[in-house]
Amino acid sequence: MKLATALYLVPVNISDAPLRDTLPEGNLDVLRGLRHIIVENVRTARRFLKRCDPAFDIAAVTFHELNRHTDPADVSSYLDPLRAGEPVGVMSEAGCPAVADPGALAVSIAQREGLQVVPLVGPSSILMALMASGFNGQGFSFNGYLPIDAREREKKIRDLEALSRKLDMTQIFIETPYRNNRMVESLCHTLKGDTLICVACDITDPEKESIRTLPASRWKREKYDFDKRPAIFLIYSH
Amino acid sequence: MKLATALYLVPVNISDAPLRDTLPEGNLDVLRGLRHIIVENVRTARRFLKRCDPAFDIAAVTFHELNRHTDPADVSSYLDPLRAGEPVGVMSEAGCPAVADPGALAVSIAQREGLQVVPLVGPSSILMALMASGFNGQGFSFNGYLPIDAREREKKIRDLEALSRKLDMTQIFIETPYRNNRMVESLCHTLKGDTLICVACDITDPEKESIRTLPASRWKREKYDFDKRPAIFLIYSH
Repeated sequence: MKLATALYLVPVNISDAPLRDTLPEGNLDVLRGLRHIIVENVRTARRFLKRCDPAFDIAAVTFHELNRHTDPADVSSYLDPLRAGEPVGVMSEAGCPAVADPGALAVSIAQREGLQVVPLVGPSSILMALMASGFNGQGFSFNGYLPIDAREREKKIRDLEALSRKLDMTQIFIETPYRNNRMVESLCHTLKGDTLICVACDITDPEKESIRTLPASRWKREKYDFDKRPAIFLIYSH
Repeated sequence: MKLATALYLVPVNISDAPLRDTLPEGNLDVLRGLRHIIVENVRTARRFLKRCDPAFDIAAVTFHELNRHTDPADVSSYLDPLRAGEPVGVMSEAGCPAVADPGALAVSIAQREGLQVVPLVGPSSILMALMASGFNGQGFSFNGYLPIDAREREKKIRDLEALSRKLDMTQIFIETPYRNNRMVESLCHTLKGDTLICVACDITDPEKESIRTLPASRWKREKYDFDKRPAIFLIYSH
């Protein structure tokens, strides 16, 4: 069956969990129908496809690398097959493509030209952390990385706490993995004692996943080691 | 194989797409291992389970209804099986449970007691709309419903536009489906002409899905009919 002409946004696993536990089977049918895939890194993309199906015909696929080293002027040409009626895929390094990552540029070009864009289902650590946090905000914000400078960081943390309370919104952010423990310390030190902190680590990993919510005052007394593990941080003040 | 003791957050389909296209196969193994499921509506939960597997042993499952009519004081007792070492599930009406929906209350109780919470992968219209919008913000906010009063609504729309530009964040919201067309009109009328609007409708539906991004000035001239269709609205000002 030939795949309809569209830009397919294809999620990638975020842990070593069996693929059948974190990706719909139908995604593989889409991947098999693609001859052009926009990826952040060709090597890891190939590895993912081989993991999906050891018999995957990788030689038949042309990869187009889109990452921070790519000249934005080149990206439009990656969509030439799509303009000619061929389906094209977008994959990121892990999780759902085009959410605050370079793949969004390819999507925005497709949208500007009225080309069809089809997102597929897959693991999103941001969304799964939110689900498991228990934070019942009327909404939520994902803020990316916080400032590195200690003072600016503390100010940002306090601003997010105030926003969470005022708007009843969960505030979500990330950190460079080797600084995760220091992030928890900063949060404990800066937030009010009853503000809730959720740390979600190694999401979907059947062995290592850990998603815990505690008030700031409790985290201070906890033992933890989140360094070098993929983590999402969430705070909620109510 | 016995399921580990945890509160499992089990996503539900959001369209009539084949389940193999939007839910990982492994989710069904988890569902088969549950004897207690917290649901928003028992009838639709039963229908979903039968759709997952016509032979699903629904008679073996005790359903606990958690919706806006539920007394919050009753919810804690729904977790009694979990406290006794039995896995418990949480399902919402559609999409991922416990994201700004009543299920979050059950999750927050589990977190407070240090009980394990395991989110599963599934379709989230918010996240999939964001992926396909092409909006490359450094972050994003989900704001739920906007105010109904026309003046307050316009003010809120303008506030979100200003926030999007200032913080480089995509602003996401929803509307009661029978008012979707009027929402697009409000947005066109209120936003600057070059602010981008994405309307994402019937996500994952193989026939009806439509995810389009255009500047406000272009939407004014477009023909559309989004009424009575599940929709997500996103704006991005840059």
